[in-house]
This record gives sequence, C-alpha cells and structure tokens, in this order.
Amino acid sequence: MSKMKRHHLTNSILPGIILVLISLTYSCEKKTAAKEVPIDGYNNTNCFGIMPLPAKIEWGKGICRIDHSFDISMDVPEGSRSEKAVQRFIIRLDERTMLFLSHEPATQKGSLHIICNRTGKLSPGEDESYQLHISPDAIELSAETDLGVLYGLETLLQLVRSDEKGFYFPGLVIDDQPRFTWRGLMIDVSRHFITLEKIKQNIDAMAAVKMNVLHLHLSDDQGFRIETSSCPKLYQMGSDGLYFTKVQMKDLIAYADERGIRIVPEFDMPGHTTSWFPGYPELAVFPGDYEIERGFGIFDCVIDPTKEGTYKLLDRFITEMCELFPDEYFHIGGDENNGIQWDSSATITAFKKEHGIADNHELQAYFNERINKILLRNGKKMVGWEEIANEKLKGDIIVHSWRSEKSLSNAIRGGYKAILSRGYYIDLIYPASDHYLVDPIPNDSLLTPEEKARVLGGEATMWSEYVTMENIDSRIWPRTAAIAERFWSPEDIRDVDDMYRRLDKISIELEWLGITHISNQEMMMRRLMRSKDISSLRPIVNLVEPMHGYTRKGDFLEHNGFKMNQFSPYTRLMDVAGPDARSARIFRQTVARYLESRDAKDRDYLNNQLLFWLANDEKLQLAIENLPNLKDVSAHSSNLVTISEIAIDAISFIDSGKKPSEGWLEKSREKIELATVPQGQTKLMITDVVGQLVTAAENKPGNE
Amino acid sequence: MSKMKRHHLTNSILPGIILVLISLTYSCEKKTAAKEVPIDGYNNTNCFGIMPLPAKIEWGKGICRIDHSFDISMDVPEGSRSEKAVQRFIIRLDERTMLFLSHEPATQKGSLHIICNRTGKLSPGEDESYQLHISPDAIELSAETDLGVLYGLETLLQLVRSDEKGFYFPGLVIDDQPRFTWRGLMIDVSRHFITLEKIKQNIDAMAAVKMNVLHLHLSDDQGFRIETSSCPKLYQMGSDGLYFTKVQMKDLIAYADERGIRIVPEFDMPGHTTSWFPGYPELAVFPGDYEIERGFGIFDCVIDPTKEGTYKLLDRFITEMCELFPDEYFHIGGDENNGIQWDSSATITAFKKEHGIADNHELQAYFNERINKILLRNGKKMVGWEEIANEKLKGDIIVHSWRSEKSLSNAIRGGYKAILSRGYYIDLIYPASDHYLVDPIPNDSLLTPEEKARVLGGEATMWSEYVTMENIDSRIWPRTAAIAERFWSPEDIRDVDDMYRRLDKISIELEWLGITHISNQEMMMRRLMRSKDISSLRPIVNLVEPMHGYTRKGDFLEHNGFKMNQFSPYTRLMDVAGPDARSARIFRQTVARYLESRDAKDRDYLNNQLLFWLANDEKLQLAIENLPNLKDVSAHSSNLVTISEIAIDAISFIDSGKKPSEGWLEKSREKIELATVPQGQTKLMITDVVGQLVTAAENKPGNE
Repeated sequence: MSKMKRHHLTNSILPGIILVLISLTYSCEKKTAAKEVPIDGYNNTNCFGIMPLPAKIEWGKGICRIDHSFDISMDVPEGSRSEKAVQRFIIRLDERTMLFLSHEPATQKGSLHIICNRTGKLSPGEDESYQLHISPDAIELSAETDLGVLYGLETLLQLVRSDEKGFYFPGLVIDDQPRFTWRGLMIDVSRHFITLEKIKQNIDAMAAVKMNVLHLHLSDDQGFRIETSSCPKLYQMGSDGLYFTKVQMKDLIAYADERGIRIVPEFDMPGHTTSWFPGYPELAVFPGDYEIERGFGIFDCVIDPTKEGTYKLLDRFITEMCELFPDEYFHIGGDENNGIQWDSSATITAFKKEHGIADNHELQAYFNERINKILLRNGKKMVGWEEIANEKLKGDIIVHSWRSEKSLSNAIRGGYKAILSRGYYIDLIYPASDHYLVDPIPNDSLLTPEEKARVLGGEATMWSEYVTMENIDSRIWPRTAAIAERFWSPEDIRDVDDMYRRLDKISIELEWLGITHISNQEMMMRRLMRSKDISSLRPIVNLVEPMHGYTRKGDFLEHNGFKMNQFSPYTRLMDVAGPDARSARIFRQTVARYLESRDAKDRDYLNNQLLFWLANDEKLQLAIENLPNLKDVSAHSSNLVTISEIAIDAISFIDSGKKPSEGWLEKSREKIELATVPQGQTKLMITDVVGQLVTAAENKPGNE
Repeated sequence: MSKMKRHHLTNSILPGIILVLISLTYSCEKKTAAKEVPIDGYNNTNCFGIMPLPAKIEWGKGICRIDHSFDISMDVPEGSRSEKAVQRFIIRLDERTMLFLSHEPATQKGSLHIICNRTGKLSPGEDESYQLHISPDAIELSAETDLGVLYGLETLLQLVRSDEKGFYFPGLVIDDQPRFTWRGLMIDVSRHFITLEKIKQNIDAMAAVKMNVLHLHLSDDQGFRIETSSCPKLYQMGSDGLYFTKVQMKDLIAYADERGIRIVPEFDMPGHTTSWFPGYPELAVFPGDYEIERGFGIFDCVIDPTKEGTYKLLDRFITEMCELFPDEYFHIGGDENNGIQWDSSATITAFKKEHGIADNHELQAYFNERINKILLRNGKKMVGWEEIANEKLKGDIIVHSWRSEKSLSNAIRGGYKAILSRGYYIDLIYPASDHYLVDPIPNDSLLTPEEKARVLGGEATMWSEYVTMENIDSRIWPRTAAIAERFWSPEDIRDVDDMYRRLDKISIELEWLGITHISNQEMMMRRLMRSKDISSLRPIVNLVEPMHGYTRKGDFLEHNGFKMNQFSPYTRLMDVAGPDARSARIFRQTVARYLESRDAKDRDYLNNQLLFWLANDEKLQLAIENLPNLKDVSAHSSNLVTISEIAIDAISFIDSGKKPSEGWLEKSREKIELATVPQGQTKLMITDVVGQLVTAAENKPGNE
C-alpha cells in the first residue's frame, strides 16, 4: 500500500481506527485471561493457574469456601519451618481475599489441617513431596518433611479463586513431588550489585514456583561482593563499597532456609578474578597496579596456580566462607580462563615442565585439585562450570554444564554429578518457550538410568552485565517460572501455549512478592517519555526485544562507538524492552491461525491491529520529537508503519485472491529486510511474520 | 437523565463515546504537560520544572548544550561531599540523556565548574546557599559549603531539557538559599516496619527536593526498631525481628550525611511505649505480661516516671543512642500520655504529693527534666512533641508542634525553638494544596523578628498505621515535594496551580530514585483486578480518595466490624487510592471554569468525561463481577453513573437555559447525597462539584 493510499485510508476510516483501539484492548485482554474450565458448575476462571504443574492432580467434587473464620491447625514437629510458613501464608491469603483472617492457630482441627513428620534437610535428594486434599468441608495438607508443607502452601495460594459469592478453593486431590532435586537460579551480583532486599524478593519468588537453590555468583572481574575477615582487602578494595556483610549473609541464608531454599556461594577462580587483585596483587600471575574491571568480557588476568602463597590465602578465605555458608556444596567457578597469562609467564611454563603438566587445562585441574582438598577438609563438595571436568579431578563433584551441548552427558559419563544451565541463560533474552523446552534429560537421552540419576537438575543463570536493580526482575521473571516448571513437573508437560497462559497469571502474582518486572518496565517507559503518558510508546515496547544471544553480548559496542561498562546508563529502549514481546507473540499466533484457516475474525483482528499501529505512529512521533535519545523508538515506529502497510496489502491480496505484482513482492521484501535492522540493539519482532504474509500472498491467491 | 434515556444515548452516540475515550486521553495528557515557555526561540517545555523554586532566578540568553564530552572540574576542599555527589550526578544525568558521559574529572576547566570553600556542618543554621550560572559556554556552580553544591546539582538535574537536536541546560542565573533551616520528613518505622533500602530511596528523594532532616520515629507501642546492646531485650522482644542493626544505622547515617541530610532519632516516651515492656516490664507503671501492641490508638500503659530504676535504664539506653546518632538533636516524643495509669497508681499519686507535683503534665515535665539531664550530659539538645512545653522545662529545646493551632507560637513565646508539623500530617490524605499553603510563619504572624528566628522550619509526618512497604511512597510522594517547597522557597510562592503543574513533573523524576508511588499503585490495581488490564479500574482510582483526617483514623473500624491492626491486609481500594485524585482535580477545575465562563470547550470536555464514566461502568462491572472484595469499587462506579447522569442533565439545563423542575432538583440532590457515602473508607471526590452544577442549573438558566 502506498503512502498516499494510507492517508486516504486513515481519513476515511477514522472511526474504524478508533473502534480498533477499543476492540484491541478487549481482544488482548481476552487472550491473556485463562480459559474458563467449568467444574461442577462453578466459575473456575484460571482453574489451571498452577505453576509448576503438579505431578498428579485429580479434580474433585465441589469447592471449599474461604471466609473470615478460616483457620489452620498443625500436627508438625516443633521448630519446623511450618509455623512461620503458615503466618506468611495467612498474610498472603489475606492480601488477596481481604477477609481479615485470624493469625491465631485453630484450637481444634482447622479449616486447613497440616501434617508433617519431620524437618527437612536442605540437601539434594531430600523428600519434598506433599499431598493436598481439598473437599467442601476440609483441606488437608500432608508431607513427609516441612519442605513439602512449604510447597503445598504455595500450591494452595495458586488455587484461590472467587465468584460473586466469595473466595474458595476448588475440590481436588494433588499428589506432588519434583522431578529434579536441584532447581536453581543463579544471580550474578558482581557485574552489577544487587541488594539484599532485591535478593530476598527473588527468594520469595523462587519459593512461589518451588525452586530450591539460589546460587550467588559473588565474585568476578567487576566486583568482590562479600565481607571477609581473613582477606579483608578483597571486599575493601574490590567492591566500591557494594558488598554483603557477613551478618547480612547469615540473615539471607536464614531467610532462604525458612523458605526451603539453599544458598550455594560461588567464587569464580582462577579466571574472572580481576577484582581480587587490587587488594591482593600477589595472587595474580604478573605484578601490577590492579583496578576493578569496569568493562565486560573475558580478561587475561588470572590467579597464579603455581605459587604456594596462592593456596595459603585461598585456604584462609575458603575456610572462612565454608563456615559462613552452611550448604554442603561450594561453587568454584572455573570458567573462561583463556590461558594467555599462564602461557606468557616463564615461571608458570617452568612449573608445568617440572610437574609434567601437559597444558593449561591440566594446570587448572591441578589448581582445582588443590582447592578441592581445602573444600574436603571443610566438609564441602565442589561444584564448578564445565571446564573443571578433567579425568585427574575425581570425587563427589558437580559439573555445571553451560556452554557445550555434550558437556552434561560427558560429565555424567566421566562419573560426575551434573546440573544444566546450557539452555537456561536468561540473560540472553530468548523467549520463555525456548528455555521451557530444554530438558536436563531429554527424552532421547542415551544415558543409563544410573547415569540419569546423577543429573541433579539445573539452574537459570542471571548474568548481570546488562541488568541493574531496575530491570533485573524483568530479566528473571516471569520466564524463570517456566524453567522452574521444567525442573519440577513431569517431563511430558510441554504445551507451550498452556505454559504462556499460566505464566500470564503467575506473572501478576509474582508482583505481590515485590518483583518489579511489570511495574519497573512502566516506570522506565515513563522516564523515556518524560511523561506519565506512555500510551504511544507501549505498543512499540510490546513489539520489540533486545537482541538475543551473544549478538549483543559479543562486541559490547554501541551504535555510536561507546563500549558498555558498569557505569553506563541502563535506561534505554534495549533495557526497557524485555523478552517475549507480548503483542508480537499474539500477532504471530494470529497470523499462523489466519494462514491456516483464513478465518475472517483473524483477518479483521490483524487489520485492526495493523491500522492501530499506523495511527499510533503519528501520535508517537509527535510525542517524541523533542526526545533526542529515542531515535531507536522513532525508527522502529516508522518501520512498523512500513511493514504494517505491506501486511495490510498482503492480507488484502490473500483475501481477495488477486495476485500481487512482481514489483510489489520485490519492493515489499526489500522494505521488510530494512525493517529487520536492529535499532539501538533492539529488534522489531514481527518482520518475519509479515514476510510470511507476503509469501502467502504470492503463493496462495485467496481460498476461493 | 433517566436510566432509559441513558441507554438510548449510549446506543445512538457510541462512536461519540469512543471518540470521547480517545480525546480524553489526549486532554488529560495535555493538562499534565507543563506549558511551553519559549526562551530565545528554543523549545523550553517544562522550563519551570524546578521544585522547590529558587529564591532568585534570572533567565539568561541562550542555552548550554550537553553532549558526550560534558565533563566536570572542581575546586573544593578535600574530603568534601562534592566528589561523590558529582559521581551520582553524572550517573543520573546519563540515565536521562544516555550520552555515556565520562566519570573521570576534567583535566582543565570542565563544562561544569564547581567551587566551594568548606565542608558544611550538618547543623541548623549552616550555610546552604549556592549560585548557579549557566551560559552557552560554561556552567559555574559556587557555594560556601558543599551542602550548597549538593543543592545546586539537584537544581541542575531539574533543568535538563531537550529539543530535536539534543539535550541542554537553559541559560540562567540562580541565587538560591532556603527560607527555613529545618526541612524535615518524619517516618514512623514502628507501626509498620520500613526497610533500610526504602528509607535510603526516601533519603534520595528528600535530597532531590532539598530537604535536610530525616526524623526516624524508632519506637512506639507497635514496635521497637533498633538494636541496642545496653538494653537488648528492647529490640529482641519488641520488634518481631524487624529492626535496624547498629551497623545498618551507621550506614544509613553516612548515606544521609553524604546527601546533606541529618538523621534525628525519636524514642517516644513516656507514652507510646508498649513495645518496651515485653523486655522490660519493670519500666511500666504496673507489673504484667506485656506484649507488642497490634492495634492502633492511644493506650494507657506508660513508663513509670517515679522509679529510679526507670532512669538508670534510660540513662544506659539514651547514652548508647547518643553515641550512635551523631546529630546534636534527640527527639524524646512525649505525646499522647493519657495519664490514666499515672492516676490509678497509688505509688505515683503518693510520689506527686511528696514532691509537690500538681498534675500529670507537671509529672511529665519532671520526667522530661530528668531525661534532659541525660541528654545534656551526652551533649545533645532535646526535641519533643508539643506536650513537653512546660514552664518548668527550660533550655535550648525544640518544641515540635503537631496538634493545636497555638502550640507553635505559644512555644516560641515560652522561649523555646520550634518546628511545625501541624498541617503537614501527610498520613491524613489531605491534598497537596492544603499542606502547601500551611506556613510555619504565616504572613499574619504576630511573632517578633527575634521570635520568628526561633521558628526553625517544619516536618512532614508519615505515621504508618495505614501504610506498608507497598504504599508508603504514595503517601509521602509527590505531596512532600510541595511541603519541601514551603520550607525552602520564598513565602510569596503560593500559586497552587503552578505547584501542581511542577509537582507532576517532579513526580516522574522521583520514580528514578526508586520511589514507587506510581508503579506500586498500578501493581496494587493489577492485584485488585487479578489482571494486567486495569483500564476500567483506573478511572475509579483516579476519582476516589481514602477518607481524610481522623474520620478514618478515629474509630479504626471496618465496615464489616474488623478492627485494623498491624497484620491486616493493606491491599484494598483505600490502600491503593491516594490523595489528590487526579481526574477529580481536573474535573473540578473544568467545572469551575465552565461555571465562570460557559466556554463550549469546557462543556464538551465535561460531557465527554461524563459519557466516558458511564461507558466505563459497564466494562468495569463485568470485569469485577466475580471479585467479591471489590464491592466498594462497584458501588463507586454505580454512584458515578448516577451523578454523571445528573451532571449531564445539569449541563444541558445550564446550556439550554431551560429551568429544571423542582422534582428533578430534589431527586438529584438526594442521589448526590447518597453518592457521597464512603465505600470501604474511600470517597468519590466529585459529588460536591456535581452539586454545584445542579445549583448552577437551578440559579442560572443559561447565559443568553
């Protein structure tokens, strides 16, 4: 469609456009709401809003009403996590029902009766199962350990629903237990420091989706983030004052423990250690006046594994940390040592020769073995990134697969236990569906049952080069809930559409725990627009995503030549836009359905949406004309106009059965190609779908 | 207008309603944007977006462009607050301009040159003035102390603007200094605990509007919130584990100091001390098994001022706190001791007789005098709520006026210094305009110049009965910025419309410091709606306010009979809605203008707005029909329909010149009366204005 035709159109069908505006709001919302699943005649909107889905669920008869008299009785061992969990449960239940529930325990059997046998040990393999029985008169939650109680309470909160008469739980029987014992989230607090309070909120969110390991990446080139009395210059000179005190860490560990979550500390070594060297340059291969690294990437400077002094210092430090962190596992990192300094040091070369160490991989194995001795003496087991795997390093060690496809099965076959993060790199802004379908033990796995048992689970990894306190939540959530389901639910739970439907509900509930993935995105949009009115920007943010994978991480270059670093502004479109661009997802689904079935309803929806984007551009361009830092937004909106016009024409061709001219096809494809060019490291996520419409216009001239 | 007529209307003018929807969005936004004030031909949108307004400002010629090469040089004493302030300034400037500014100091004179003579003392009366000179080639910020530098940098950030070519500062000369030396915000962390991080964000926000005193109300009946080694059972048994450690408090004090803000601690005594007694029942008048108070109000149990043991314990405790808090002032509370227990204790009655103490007021003066001795020995000056004023209590003491109209001038005449909080009780949800017009020294004040000099300033008070971490920001901000302007700017700055215009801009900027007054309101709306779609709820939230003043605080009773307490859910409409309901304010202004000038544009705006509310009701009622806890929202929306119909009819009468019937007048007033009934302790804020329209319809039959 030409520019002129468009203007003609815009004028003649203005009321139409406005109708579009309204109906769009409706359509989008209708799509976000879960389907109604009638049970026994009750309105059960969001009935399946549980995430992760339980191992076994049987919907029962009737419902169990909740009112002000709702109370809880317990038959649990003294000092279990249940008491505090029940207090939190009541507050959270009250927040959504506003029933002013009692905080006193029931004097006899309560509306909810909780039974558990023992206090669970926070350790891989512990029993985390629970059974939930909801009938019209009573709810019973039983579990072997109090960890099961925690999970059962989270499930109950996800089950709350309401009708015009009040709130209720649906009648059902759930028999639930996790598929994997290690369900983790790693947070990198080094590149950008993340505060204790934000970590706590994330612990609450993890608990809500039944995760049980928080892996804290506590040191890297850009920051050393924990107080230590044995080597105080580490945090004093390596943190810019941004670190956790030991008291804070103890508090955090207790907080996580109450919620059934282990904290596994990581001190990445021998590479990724620049921030250690301002305080202890003697640890480095070469002497120097070291400073905290501000940029991102892989740096040459590493710990010298050949000096005895290295191990003396590390012994002191690791022993102190082993005391601070009660978990039986200790992560030593071990990734991305490029070996350049080891190769260029004469003393290291001599050491290798002297000790018959063939290469740097073996030298690192030697280093790891020395570290492992320290850990074993402190009663800890080693975890390390996949690079630590080496036939010379034996023992009850976990290999953390992150990079290569075969690393997990190789490690398992090498006798290690393993956890998977390859495929769960949430910093790379892939859609939730991608992560969701990655399985630690895919169903075509060739591992033996014994080997499979050593695959403990996995971790989503939140590397923090490009995240700050403002947007870290939007990078972790809600996608990590989909990963949590992969770790918890049976392997055949793989319906992506159903996952997204439930994710939309969980996403709202995560907010109530302090997670700011929605609210801060809106705040950041207001900052971009310098206004409370973000109505014309939102459609763009809902259509673009930051570039995926390492295309963005690879070069770290800005369009105007500035390298990103720790101090850069993280307030641009690429920091505001997130993964899973919502409008793009709905548009994509609708195009697919339309091309399949040629439904007029889908065609009208698409046309309405496209006309809305055309109309939005004028409003947006006017609003941002004096905002020089929104050139990327402006370019996207102009490109959106271009491809929307093409899409409208394509649909008209498809619909009418007329064949487009060669010229139109060629020109349209050229324009689509141009619209795919990233703007400010963000991409418009529907250009390929518009391309599909053009191809359909070319190949299928209508369905008459 | 009858129900039937309304439906007829709705059907026939549906496109009209939709047009209304669109134009409303536009109109509202146009109203939020500041007027353009052209200077030298440049686009200076938001030119006067400074708050508080400077003492003297002269707009100069030209503008000073900011680009990537922007740098800063300094001529300041070593160790001043300027260095860190400049680093924060660069980060904040970069967040909005995204220019990737350098963090290295300029090697010669920078784009911005900063001069100050000495490090300021955080003490009342210190020089806080600064001068800012912006010309096209250079910016100079000079100040006597580094406190002035802090303020100058905040002004600069508020001056950033942009056109299509880039960012710039407008040319100008500012010569600024505060009117009052004590510009405070009190936060009550007792009733609901507020975390360190939230306090820090509020410190940043205070600094942004040039406030300089954070008064922490650290103890009350509902919680004792600080670690103490001299009396550890105070926090161990009085805080539910929710308290600041001394290390945290030192960190907070340093954080505030860097931003030019003093921290004044308050330990409220002898009343409001229930939380002290679980740990130290011997302090109380009567023995007992005390528990932390969960409800709100004035309670009988108070400290016994007649036992020597009381003073021994308080001496230990106060001495420790005087060491922890470096400020020269120490707030001892002293409010709302109802004297009931003092009257009913035989030993206290005997003590009074023995010591010739006439009444409880004098007994409290005796208590205060004993406390004052402890403070003086520790080099501190006493601050107390107005109840401490007593001719027997002499010295360099600050009386904190909060309740009675005359308390401030009485205290001043009694020889005290004084600060004002009466009129700044932001917990009572009055509009910003009310607080804005309250002046510590009103221009009809009868105080002598010497007496006026003892009025140090004032404090906004954030009592936390009804606030939680989720909504405290929305109770403090943006209104407190208007109060900050009262404390800083010349007394003749009193234009309410201009204040609101600038407040809208500052409101957005406060978000960038982590303040969640906008984003959490949206989050809480999503929770109410159980959906991301809050489009039909938002119009109601923008029209209602929680009940003002003590009408709500007075009885603490819920509509269904439950008393509010510390554990109650604070997630209802009354917790979500805030002061200064935006749509109500705009509607009110437009009605006033319409009744004044009968402008057709205003009439159309009002009609459009009213039709929008009618249409919204159907959408809203449908969306919330299964949400039983939104009965208040539903009732408001129904009432809004009723009064909107009345308003449409009234406008039609006014416009046509036809006289309404007596029956219509009577019926309409009855209906308006019914619509003013609070729903869930919130009020629809336009019923009175609709009443004005009815009266206008009655009295002025058109303007032909």
